Amino acid sequence: MNSFLSIDSVDDVQALVRRGLEMKEGPIGAWNGLGEGRTLGMIFMNPSLRTRLSTQKAGLNLGMNVMVMNAGGGDGWNLEMRPGAVMDGDAAEHIVDAARVISEYCDIVALRSFATLRSREEDRRDPVLSTFARESSVPVVTMESALGHPLQALADMMTIRERYPKGTPRVVLSWAPHPRALPQAVPNSFARWARAMEFDLVVANPQGYDLDDSVLGDVPVMRNQEEAFDGADVIYAKNWSASEPYGEVIERDRSWMIDSDDMARTNNAIFMHCLPVRRNVVVTDGVLDSPRSVVIPQAGNREFSAQVVLASLLEEMA
Amino acid sequence: MNSFLSIDSVDDVQALVRRGLEMKEGPIGAWNGLGEGRTLGMIFMNPSLRTRLSTQKAGLNLGMNVMVMNAGGGDGWNLEMRPGAVMDGDAAEHIVDAARVISEYCDIVALRSFATLRSREEDRRDPVLSTFARESSVPVVTMESALGHPLQALADMMTIRERYPKGTPRVVLSWAPHPRALPQAVPNSFARWARAMEFDLVVANPQGYDLDDSVLGDVPVMRNQEEAFDGADVIYAKNWSASEPYGEVIERDRSWMIDSDDMARTNNAIFMHCLPVRRNVVVTDGVLDSPRSVVIPQAGNREFSAQVVLASLLEEMA
Amino acid sequence: MNSFLSIDSVDDVQALVRRGLEMKEGPIGAWNGLGEGRTLGMIFMNPSLRTRLSTQKAGLNLGMNVMVMNAGGGDGWNLEMRPGAVMDGDAAEHIVDAARVISEYCDIVALRSFATLRSREEDRRDPVLSTFARESSVPVVTMESALGHPLQALADMMTIRERYPKGTPRVVLSWAPHPRALPQAVPNSFARWARAMEFDLVVANPQGYDLDDSVLGDVPVMRNQEEAFDGADVIYAKNWSASEPYGEVIERDRSWMIDSDDMARTNNAIFMHCLPVRRNVVVTDGVLDSPRSVVIPQAGNREFSAQVVLASLLEEMA
Repeated sequence: MNSFLSIDSVDDVQALVRRGLEMKEGPIGAWNGLGEGRTLGMIFMNPSLRTRLSTQKAGLNLGMNVMVMNAGGGDGWNLEMRPGAVMDGDAAEHIVDAARVISEYCDIVALRSFATLRSREEDRRDPVLSTFARESSVPVVTMESALGHPLQALADMMTIRERYPKGTPRVVLSWAPHPRALPQAVPNSFARWARAMEFDLVVANPQGYDLDDSVLGDVPVMRNQEEAFDGADVIYAKNWSASEPYGEVIERDRSWMIDSDDMARTNNAIFMHCLPVRRNVVVTDGVLDSPRSVVIPQAGNREFSAQVVLASLLEEMA
Repeated sequence: MNSFLSIDSVDDVQALVRRGLEMKEGPIGAWNGLGEGRTLGMIFMNPSLRTRLSTQKAGLNLGMNVMVMNAGGGDGWNLEMRPGAVMDGDAAEHIVDAARVISEYCDIVALRSFATLRSREEDRRDPVLSTFARESSVPVVTMESALGHPLQALADMMTIRERYPKGTPRVVLSWAPHPRALPQAVPNSFARWARAMEFDLVVANPQGYDLDDSVLGDVPVMRNQEEAFDGADVIYAKNWSASEPYGEVIERDRSWMIDSDDMARTNNAIFMHCLPVRRNVVVTDGVLDSPRSVVIPQAGNREFSAQVVLASLLEEMA
Repeated sequence: MNSFLSIDSVDDVQALVRRGLEMKEGPIGAWNGLGEGRTLGMIFMNPSLRTRLSTQKAGLNLGMNVMVMNAGGGDGWNLEMRPGAVMDGDAAEHIVDAARVISEYCDIVALRSFATLRSREEDRRDPVLSTFARESSVPVVTMESALGHPLQALADMMTIRERYPKGTPRVVLSWAPHPRALPQAVPNSFARWARAMEFDLVVANPQGYDLDDSVLGDVPVMRNQEEAFDGADVIYAKNWSASEPYGEVIERDRSWMIDSDDMARTNNAIFMHCLPVRRNVVVTDGVLDSPRSVVIPQAGNREFSAQVVLASLLEEMA
């Protein structure tokens, strides 16, 4: 693995999931030498809580030095994204130069840059991550980009495998309501990784919210959330914005909120969400705080998904 | 000690003060092994300079990894505080979930969340700290909450004991003017800790500014600042907002500003303030920059008050 | 060296440049013991990317603990700068107290505070850096102040010496257009350091943009950019605001933008810029992305200019 940009960066998804779970078991100091004298630079163009703390912790677990920076108008400057731009506006630095410079000071650069949802074509090009990966002189790890959030998906797969160590659990990725237009990065990655794990995956979402064909492959899409839940082993709730018209909120039907009645249809399923979650909008307090909710250990696994990815990159360098 | 939320977390206040002063004497590397492989997460919902740097330094002195984050609209999201809220507004994450998740990545979580001064009842419940402490799976250290600022008070007691190693110095906690409405956290904690130290404590403040009975106990409150200063060994200046009506500025009389004439009435008292201080509003330049002002070593003691608290928590874990 | 405030802090400029280049060659762990148990505090009153990451990295290379803080309205408070001020306005803390307190927690304090460009007299006094340096109880390193940016200039000299190890290359510091009024700190320091290196320095700038006499000494100033470029070995491009009227933008002639035709007049010169750079305003993409552009290794040298300065200060303390 030379960078970690999407599932396509990974040779053997199932092996990576297994190794992440092994690292979680091992004593925390076991991998401390691997990152000694190495520096992880974490660059945020958008807010972060779990990703910020878990990725930083993962780097520290490996003995790395970690530098955290809010780019894009926070600690630094606004960045220009357009190739060939005449930069006489607000942006003080071009992403191309920022990527080249940041990678001078780091052994691995981790980057967060959300979808803008301005146009499907722009987000499909994933301009910030792809430019950064092209211009960086060192490996790049995505901490969510326009297209995906594979550190989250890896932690999700670890979480499912902890509860269902073998076989092909029935997994439902269910759309849920939300007041804002959110990116599709998390469901995109969840679907791609769950397919690679060979889980029995179904997606439930309203009309106009279908994920991209390249993401779905032959995964069934159901319009009836209740039917989708029948017999499920895993309910993965998430809001995302519409695919048609792209990036808008077109469905506000509160019946898509996941409640105890919905969960009662399942095969005593675990409840998952990547967090942050809007309580009593996406899911009721009752479900989120129930014994079958695994959202907190799921977030805890973010530390070890980041750790196994950073460790794999460090091993390639050694 | 399982957490450090207020003076009530401390078994023996005088012993903790003594041990803090001992740590200050010891070589800086003496305690480096205690925090090895342990992580301190520092979460700020409000600005900070002394607390940010001194607590971080204390963690590093103990060999801990330290992660610093501005939550509540800075690096992360706005947080919902109300139990049972339907979260369709601005807040993207509930404090309950933030606390549970952050504690997944840390061995100790330190938290700053100021009083809102919206209502006495709300601030008395200390909703952010108490929720965080309840939901966290690891020890919590307050870096100032609605009700108190015990890391400051511990440093204050260390500072007084350095100058008056024995006996019961006469200590005056004096209100002083300020253009803004400030929380009562610092005077609350100062009074409670000074009582536990068995100092000869008096509080001087205008009418409408009396601290809570639970804080004051049997400490005399004087309306005449000049009389209060007669024979004092320690002058501790601080503004706080009114108790009736709660959280407002009702007194702007500049004669409460502490000047050289005020200090001349004392028993050559030391001058203390927690900083930041409004020069020539709370206290004159002359007093603040005089040889009897100990505000800088007092701020320096914040490093060792944080260190002795973190060390005590780490020892409980070992 | 007791602090690093300007070129005046340096005994032997050429020796410091040589040592910086030696450190760059050495293995990264070679100097790791020098900063052990020492703390670098980095205080930013203005945004930063290169300086933030490279100085932090330099401290970590030396084994230091590093604490980074955005002061002046970011993580902390607005600071009062005026001596004797009655602080009843926005500023919660005086720079004098901030400097005294911050230096309590650090072994070295690094500070960034840009020119305000409000008045030549104010910027000439360099009020923030000079007050900080006076009040700090530990060595202070400037990370750019109103008057200069010597960590940048040191990296610049290292970059020129890497390409021209001997002799006196012909160096042109050329003004270039920019939509905003920028400080003169970078050209000030570049000119002073290039003179100390005994390079054959020329400055090209429009009328009204002459640098201060104390900076220029006997360096020739040319109004004709094209003539200045004839036979040059090094082109150093930079915008700065006018000297008369001070701090304004009075020249917007795009012909000052550096393009391939300009570079063709030189002696196959290397192209330098401190970054961030406005592409196609200051310099064309063609020049910036050409093989003779050294802006990325120049930025990379910031790590080692900071490292040699911090190492020199640590050695004084040992």
